[in-house]
Amino acid sequence: MGKLLIVGTVAFDAIETPFGKTDKILGGAATYIGLSAAQFGLKTGIISVVGGDFPQEYLDMLAEKNIDTSGIEIVKNGKTFFWSGKYHNDLNTRDTLVTDLNVLANFNPVVPKNFMDCDFLMLGNLHPAVQMAVIEQIPVRPKLVVLDTMNFWMDNTWDMLMKVIAKIDVITINDEEARQLSGEYSLVKAAQKIHEMGPKYVVIKKGEHGALLFNEDNVFFAPALPLEEVFDPTGAGDTFAGGFIGYLASTHDISFENMKRAVIYGSNFASFCVEKFGTERMVNLSHQEVQNRLQQFKELTQFEIELS
Amino acid sequence: MGKLLIVGTVAFDAIETPFGKTDKILGGAATYIGLSAAQFGLKTGIISVVGGDFPQEYLDMLAEKNIDTSGIEIVKNGKTFFWSGKYHNDLNTRDTLVTDLNVLANFNPVVPKNFMDCDFLMLGNLHPAVQMAVIEQIPVRPKLVVLDTMNFWMDNTWDMLMKVIAKIDVITINDEEARQLSGEYSLVKAAQKIHEMGPKYVVIKKGEHGALLFNEDNVFFAPALPLEEVFDPTGAGDTFAGGFIGYLASTHDISFENMKRAVIYGSNFASFCVEKFGTERMVNLSHQEVQNRLQQFKELTQFEIELS
Repeated sequence: MGKLLIVGTVAFDAIETPFGKTDKILGGAATYIGLSAAQFGLKTGIISVVGGDFPQEYLDMLAEKNIDTSGIEIVKNGKTFFWSGKYHNDLNTRDTLVTDLNVLANFNPVVPKNFMDCDFLMLGNLHPAVQMAVIEQIPVRPKLVVLDTMNFWMDNTWDMLMKVIAKIDVITINDEEARQLSGEYSLVKAAQKIHEMGPKYVVIKKGEHGALLFNEDNVFFAPALPLEEVFDPTGAGDTFAGGFIGYLASTHDISFENMKRAVIYGSNFASFCVEKFGTERMVNLSHQEVQNRLQQFKELTQFEIELS
Repeated sequence: MGKLLIVGTVAFDAIETPFGKTDKILGGAATYIGLSAAQFGLKTGIISVVGGDFPQEYLDMLAEKNIDTSGIEIVKNGKTFFWSGKYHNDLNTRDTLVTDLNVLANFNPVVPKNFMDCDFLMLGNLHPAVQMAVIEQIPVRPKLVVLDTMNFWMDNTWDMLMKVIAKIDVITINDEEARQLSGEYSLVKAAQKIHEMGPKYVVIKKGEHGALLFNEDNVFFAPALPLEEVFDPTGAGDTFAGGFIGYLASTHDISFENMKRAVIYGSNFASFCVEKFGTERMVNLSHQEVQNRLQQFKELTQFEIELS
């Protein structure tokens, strides 16, 4: 079983959806990725930064999930990164109401000694200079490096982002971001262009429409589970990424066949994430629930056709 | 092997996409459905109406595909139904430029004697009163009745449409139409509501995002094949429906397991349809091409995960 290191935000979110709204609750890319990967009982660590306002109980909860929080710097006189957003009725689009970087503005990531030998590295969505700083601190290149990013970094830090993308194995982005990154509308062509930038594997997340995994001439599709209700989409993409890399790390197998299973696990976990506000569903998720839903994914997608 | 009767438009289309534009070419729902179902070598007939301007060569081409055209009424002094549309750059949306009903305005469908005993009936997208007239002419209810419709009929002929929907087994509509018909945003809930209107099976077509098949508690998903280029989406939905009912008729098996295969065939054929303007690709489609693409569908969707 592999050792997984995650860099990303640990944050406060305030979320409004058609179903209700929250005060400041636990959020952040690294939080969602960590809680998702933790389903596999891995040795997992998070590198991040929070302020003195960050509750110890959140750190304790992560630690209970077997997540090493020693890489989460606490800036006593600083405030934790805060994001607030409001989803539209279709839940596919949202308005960002507040983005207070706070302690994230001067974040210098430090890889903890006991994760210098990590073999799986997840670069969650944040400034590409921070992602690069983590890559450069690790002496032996990990077996697999996965990167998540977003349009904001393409708009504002293109050159640095391209340097990071050249160094990674797998990129996970959504369909609109894949189009922006490649300049191609067709996702097949977009994946080809992105391959040429460095990543051997391109995962394109399409939200309720599932996810595509590309590797050279291979392509695999994992649907999203059709749900009666989506309560809060926040963190679904990070939960997907955490399930993906968590499964690969737990099996220590980065073949394309195993990556198929990894995107199914990612889609599986994401389908739970959206059922409640914030991290609530992922904190309380049982092995049996995951297994039952895997069975649903099989029934949803598997068929028998004889070729002639 | 079953006997399939199709009612729907046989038309002229003039299409503009980002890749080019056509003069008046062969189009119409029944044309696409027929060419698609014809892949299975069924006994297939079309009920429709055209004008004196409709070329004999088109009728000959359909006949060569083993499609019985005796149910296509020719109104010598009338003009064929004409539709013209222009697709936007993303090919997901289009503007209708011209809709000339012409002979379609006074269409009284007549079921040919040799199809009175059809066991599969496809009601292509047109006025629900025409669809109802066909249902009522057939003395013994077919084994399976599939209906396609669209938002226009929901807006303008709701009551008649509901009467038709109450009499059918399978409805195929797109996601927006499913939402309009049911008043539910969630497609799972939409399918439940539509079940209550009559159809035991609900197929929701999501274009490039695939198609969902619902039956009570069962749900199956067929992705669209990711394509480098979509040239012209016209007829993709009808081609899907033709592949669906054609496969069911050719196997004479309407179990849910077989319907899974049927939606895969539908998605398979639709992926060819969009590769060229109009019906060109479906007219020239080989068994081996279909088989090769079925293999691609398998690779795209099939995975092995052991449950514990």
